[in-house]
Amino acid sequence: MKILILNGPNLNLVGTREPQIYGKQTFEAYFEELKTRSPHELSYFQSNIEGELIDQIQQANVDGIILNAGGYTHTSVALRDCIAAVETPVIEVHISNIAGREEFRHTSLISPVCAGCVFGFGMKGYEVALGGF
Amino acid sequence: MKILILNGPNLNLVGTREPQIYGKQTFEAYFEELKTRSPHELSYFQSNIEGELIDQIQQANVDGIILNAGGYTHTSVALRDCIAAVETPVIEVHISNIAGREEFRHTSLISPVCAGCVFGFGMKGYEVALGGF
Amino acid sequence: MKILILNGPNLNLVGTREPQIYGKQTFEAYFEELKTRSPHELSYFQSNIEGELIDQIQQANVDGIILNAGGYTHTSVALRDCIAAVETPVIEVHISNIAGREEFRHTSLISPVCAGCVFGFGMKGYEVALGGF
Amino acid sequence: MKILILNGPNLNLVGTREPQIYGKQTFEAYFEELKTRSPHELSYFQSNIEGELIDQIQQANVDGIILNAGGYTHTSVALRDCIAAVETPVIEVHISNIAGREEFRHTSLISPVCAGCVFGFGMKGYEVALGGF
Amino acid sequence: MKILILNGPNLNLVGTREPQIYGKQTFEAYFEELKTRSPHELSYFQSNIEGELIDQIQQANVDGIILNAGGYTHTSVALRDCIAAVETPVIEVHISNIAGREEFRHTSLISPVCAGCVFGFGMKGYEVALGGF
Amino acid sequence: MKILILNGPNLNLVGTREPQIYGKQTFEAYFEELKTRSPHELSYFQSNIEGELIDQIQQANVDGIILNAGGYTHTSVALRDCIAAVETPVIEVHISNIAGREEFRHTSLISPVCAGCVFGFGMKGYEVALGGF
Amino acid sequence: MKILILNGPNLNLVGTREPQIYGKQTFEAYFEELKTRSPHELSYFQSNIEGELIDQIQQANVDGIILNAGGYTHTSVALRDCIAAVETPVIEVHISNIAGREEFRHTSLISPVCAGCVFGFGMKGYEVALGGF
Amino acid sequence: MKILILNGPNLNLVGTREPQIYGKQTFEAYFEELKTRSPHELSYFQSNIEGELIDQIQQANVDGIILNAGGYTHTSVALRDCIAAVETPVIEVHISNIAGREEFRHTSLISPVCAGCVFGFGMKGYEVALGGF
Amino acid sequence: MKILILNGPNLNLVGTREPQIYGKQTFEAYFEELKTRSPHELSYFQSNIEGELIDQIQQANVDGIILNAGGYTHTSVALRDCIAAVETPVIEVHISNIAGREEFRHTSLISPVCAGCVFGFGMKGYEVALGGF
Amino acid sequence: MKILILNGPNLNLVGTREPQIYGKQTFEAYFEELKTRSPHELSYFQSNIEGELIDQIQQANVDGIILNAGGYTHTSVALRDCIAAVETPVIEVHISNIAGREEFRHTSLISPVCAGCVFGFGMKGYEVALGGF
Amino acid sequence: MKILILNGPNLNLVGTREPQIYGKQTFEAYFEELKTRSPHELSYFQSNIEGELIDQIQQANVDGIILNAGGYTHTSVALRDCIAAVETPVIEVHISNIAGREEFRHTSLISPVCAGCVFGFGMKGYEVALGGF
Amino acid sequence: MKILILNGPNLNLVGTREPQIYGKQTFEAYFEELKTRSPHELSYFQSNIEGELIDQIQQANVDGIILNAGGYTHTSVALRDCIAAVETPVIEVHISNIAGREEFRHTSLISPVCAGCVFGFGMKGYEVALGGF
Repeated sequence: MKILILNGPNLNLVGTREPQIYGKQTFEAYFEELKTRSPHELSYFQSNIEGELIDQIQQANVDGIILNAGGYTHTSVALRDCIAAVETPVIEVHISNIAGREEFRHTSLISPVCAGCVFGFGMKGYEVALGGF
Repeated sequence: MKILILNGPNLNLVGTREPQIYGKQTFEAYFEELKTRSPHELSYFQSNIEGELIDQIQQANVDGIILNAGGYTHTSVALRDCIAAVETPVIEVHISNIAGREEFRHTSLISPVCAGCVFGFGMKGYEVALGGF
Repeated sequence: MKILILNGPNLNLVGTREPQIYGKQTFEAYFEELKTRSPHELSYFQSNIEGELIDQIQQANVDGIILNAGGYTHTSVALRDCIAAVETPVIEVHISNIAGREEFRHTSLISPVCAGCVFGFGMKGYEVALGGF
Repeated sequence: MKILILNGPNLNLVGTREPQIYGKQTFEAYFEELKTRSPHELSYFQSNIEGELIDQIQQANVDGIILNAGGYTHTSVALRDCIAAVETPVIEVHISNIAGREEFRHTSLISPVCAGCVFGFGMKGYEVALGGF
Repeated sequence: MKILILNGPNLNLVGTREPQIYGKQTFEAYFEELKTRSPHELSYFQSNIEGELIDQIQQANVDGIILNAGGYTHTSVALRDCIAAVETPVIEVHISNIAGREEFRHTSLISPVCAGCVFGFGMKGYEVALGGF
Repeated sequence: MKILILNGPNLNLVGTREPQIYGKQTFEAYFEELKTRSPHELSYFQSNIEGELIDQIQQANVDGIILNAGGYTHTSVALRDCIAAVETPVIEVHISNIAGREEFRHTSLISPVCAGCVFGFGMKGYEVALGGF
Repeated sequence: MKILILNGPNLNLVGTREPQIYGKQTFEAYFEELKTRSPHELSYFQSNIEGELIDQIQQANVDGIILNAGGYTHTSVALRDCIAAVETPVIEVHISNIAGREEFRHTSLISPVCAGCVFGFGMKGYEVALGGF
Repeated sequence: MKILILNGPNLNLVGTREPQIYGKQTFEAYFEELKTRSPHELSYFQSNIEGELIDQIQQANVDGIILNAGGYTHTSVALRDCIAAVETPVIEVHISNIAGREEFRHTSLISPVCAGCVFGFGMKGYEVALGGF
Repeated sequence: MKILILNGPNLNLVGTREPQIYGKQTFEAYFEELKTRSPHELSYFQSNIEGELIDQIQQANVDGIILNAGGYTHTSVALRDCIAAVETPVIEVHISNIAGREEFRHTSLISPVCAGCVFGFGMKGYEVALGGF
Repeated sequence: MKILILNGPNLNLVGTREPQIYGKQTFEAYFEELKTRSPHELSYFQSNIEGELIDQIQQANVDGIILNAGGYTHTSVALRDCIAAVETPVIEVHISNIAGREEFRHTSLISPVCAGCVFGFGMKGYEVALGGF
Repeated sequence: MKILILNGPNLNLVGTREPQIYGKQTFEAYFEELKTRSPHELSYFQSNIEGELIDQIQQANVDGIILNAGGYTHTSVALRDCIAAVETPVIEVHISNIAGREEFRHTSLISPVCAGCVFGFGMKGYEVALGGF
Repeated sequence: MKILILNGPNLNLVGTREPQIYGKQTFEAYFEELKTRSPHELSYFQSNIEGELIDQIQQANVDGIILNAGGYTHTSVALRDCIAAVETPVIEVHISNIAGREEFRHTSLISPVCAGCVFGFGMKGYEVALGGF
């Protein structure tokens, strides 16, 4: 299977900022490791722009998407509509456990239209999600 | 009059996805038909990016705008501020009847600053809205 | 097509009270004009009594109804049930843009069961709505 | 005992509209059947007008009332005040199970002042309610 | 001045039901007394039907109205719109202190458009309200 | 038909505590009477433990269940799921009119999945409910 | 009867600030006029301090109090408890119609424990309130 | 590692009821399969009783727990306290995507204290969760 | 230890008003009794003025404070900030059980910053609270 | 007097888990100490099962109960009903100050029906509560 | 210009309590420094009593006021009314960033009537605010 | 110090639209003036696109940022996460007083993670904010 890992806003900072939370490994380095362990063919894209994430989901020519929508998780009806409209299954991932953080992070607008959700396993969550395909 | 039809996120998928809801006609094909029936000069733009919709409204050199803001309808204070700031009248259109869908779609942030609202007539709504100029 | 225009409470005052909002034309005078421009055969009824509006919708022998339910828009479950029960398509019209007024006017109980909604075009809204049939 | 069955808005449509929900029997026909099975003397009244239902309750010369207030159930403080003011016991009936329908139907303003409530048994609910006298 | 006292639903029961709350005097008897003490010319109307109250306010040829809207106080946007539309000043009266009763009675939809409010003085409130003209 | 009457927490106290509310008759005594009057074959079970009520509903070999879930009515998603999962029709009964009591008793989590609801007839409600089978 | 008029915070500014709302007459001047027209013996006290208003109500040796609690109306549980504890009847007055102002002014914590309420008659409201004793 | 799979109320019905949702395989059969594929040593327990689930978590002598708390997910503070108090990491699993179901299922009281969450993968979710250890 | 008992608004009325609730003993008399039974050295202060209670807490030269803040309990952020700022431990006391009274009394702004809370034991609560030092 | 101390879910873990919060003393050890200091005859019971706590309260043959309901405090209507139904006075205890913890712990369903409440004194709270009998 | 710095409840404790938050400098010492740096003539007043702050604002003979209302910020409608009534411009200051603290501190009742707001700069905020005149 | 002034959506219209609110000076002209008065080295960037603002904050090589996020202030969790993740201090500015405008503008998602907030001083607010570095 071909799987796209799609990261939203600020996830490009992983490994360079707030190492006490996210560790010192950049996502790119983690992604290289993940590729060696994965039975699937993986690609990766990151953007801080909501509409570019929508563009990617619409145009992706893959069998599945693992999406960490970052802050857009809680505010983007447009992203939700996009996931609902395409046929590619999307699995939602969050590094932290959003239910244990601020009130405004408790609701994910995109969860109801995702094929599955994986929250709170840290960076390992992307690999756990791969197990869902 | 010169009228701009401005479509927001995911409306580029009309005609290719979810035909049971939106039919099999693409928006571009519908737009060609509409031009032949309209007494006004029509132009068309679509973007998945919130800020690009704002750019279009600020820069449009037209007599009126028909806006279907898609998912940004319910979340974009920035789009609302833009419509309130320009003098071009904006008519809000939605293909479906948003009042009959999920709770988070019941509130439109942009309705209060639009010159008129047309909801729930399907694709025909764009033509009904043209009647408002 | 035969179309009934049905006006709810206080709309009989249009043209005689609050001219700065509704203009100086009575609805009856506007209706005479509208008939001359309409491709459809139009009839008209007004009542201040919620149940009489329900009676009209149940008994109307027409192809479509344009309903401005006035203040009952926001409070009448009975009117909603009536529209849902009959097969005649009902288009909801409001002269002003209800989303831009007081909080208690933001929710329309009847929108979800109407065939389409036209808000905020002033008196012209009835004519815009006719375009929806 | 003399019992009045009082039906509110749109219940006159039972048997002629939405047969998949309410069946094909009119309420009048059901009422004739019910009279033959009932140990009590039954009378029947229907109105779409809130105030006429209040008039009936105030003036009814009976030992008990079975009231299906339809859409006024959820919006009528006036009906509630009326039931609270008279001494005749009133039993509230709904054909469908209002707790399983839209949010705005979950609250009955009249339940707290009724002698008993019977919900969700379909047309049979009127007969179940008779068992409560 | 000519003043209309307008009573809404169930206020026709005063003096015959719940005497521990409203006393044993009918409103008609109280009204006769009030006329003898009042410096103004008084008339009186009561209806259980929301739309008839609206009709009365629209058509009243008086200098002021004292309105006890009963249960419609808390639910009628139509009544509010009517009071806002006419020029006759309306004073709102309630026999009991609505702020001290059930939660759903705490909000009066008509207070914001009335010239003044008099709550909680019992039957005497109508006379107190007369002092406001 | 074989009918199980299933009582939840504290209903074993009926007849021994708060006689001004529930009378002086124990539920066991009432049940004996009910059996003599019922056209159906009745059995009875009571437990204060939420999970034991679930066990009973899952394992009951009957044609119908009359359930008074007591305090679990308002808090038990598990009980709701159980009723939704089994095919045996369940009729919900409450001795008092829960809509007229404290705010937290107004919502029943199990009503939407029950075949019918009977509230507020006192002990007689079990017999009224039998009329629903 | 001996009546105390008790004014809360900022009411000492009446007549000197915001004359378009409150007019140009000071409360002291109005009070002198009122004394000449009143059948009752009037006294007057004003304070900006919540606790001093409480002290006055506790210690007042009068037959009735007319209280305009100003901004404390909406926030003071202490004032409410005080009014509830003393036997002197208290009539609540507001110069403006609080129901038509900001949301946080819609709830009066003291209304439920007052003998009557008079809102929205301007300065004349104090005289209207005197009619309630 | 030794892993306990702990299932809450009604999950014993999987495979025998609602096959269109849960399939025709019983959980026991699925569990046997899972054991053959798992690198970990697995044990299994199910109960409909909230307190017995708490007992199990307190007493489990394992390296990790996979918990599907069923309906107690949304109502049990006691279960949450238990998970927070023990040191054994607990991974929360739900077969369906709870965010896409009824409102009252959107909040999980136990998510904030779990080591990770896996929602919406159907029965496969238990295996996905094993990937998190 | 030196302990200050600090009473807020209206608690000076205990023993003279509402004897059915508070008994006929004044707080001063109760305080004299309490001093004879207490192992601690007690002092006492009462004020109806919020800011004076704050002054007392800031300036008190004692080992502990027992505070009954009366109506300020539910509205005073200033009092809360004061208790949080000083090092003297404060125990909150209420004579009645505030959780069983009106909705607006259910939240205590000061509980979260107090060393302990004692509610609902009547006058005896002050003595129960002494047991907490 | 004979007093039962009744502990709810997870309180059996005191002394063995989270010693930084609860200390290193088990409840059993504390209970032995408490018995030596108490003027009353004490007994003790703990259960994680909601219904067993209800059974205990119904069957207890004592003069008073000290109840720490743990997580059931915030969710159990059934426990509340039980306390309301029995005549034995129940004093509610919590080791921590629940008002200073998570939002969902701020409301206690059982407080309104308890004879008194003691919150936030740590383990000492049980002894403070004994002072209330 | 003449500027009054007005501090509300508990701000007299700055420098003596909670030094980790507010530092070790008293406000008086800071004020002396500020005077030497300010181009304006400064005066200073502090009170714990809400009504005394109102008195000061009403009577201040200055060109501008810098107000830190402390805990009254969130609860005082009276203070808001006072600021709205006087013509002296008032700038609101808070030492900490109130938006990042407890929920009940997020709303400032006085912000809407202030000429400007300066939050979260620590003690330096008073100087930043001076830049606003 | 090097300071970046970062303006969000629609702030490019300042000086050309709505001059009665924002004056006739463009932001660019104001910025030129500000540079001449500022002790710091200033740069400036504006974008209507949420993600581009995030890009700027992530990549800015400055000592401080003054951010007016316009309409994204109230809706952007992504912007908030960005400010929290970088070490550059960010001061939030709004030209108008957002607390005095529509309800949906009262909450700023970014305030809690900003170093300071300056609201309501008009264009001068940028200069006031510079005083905060």
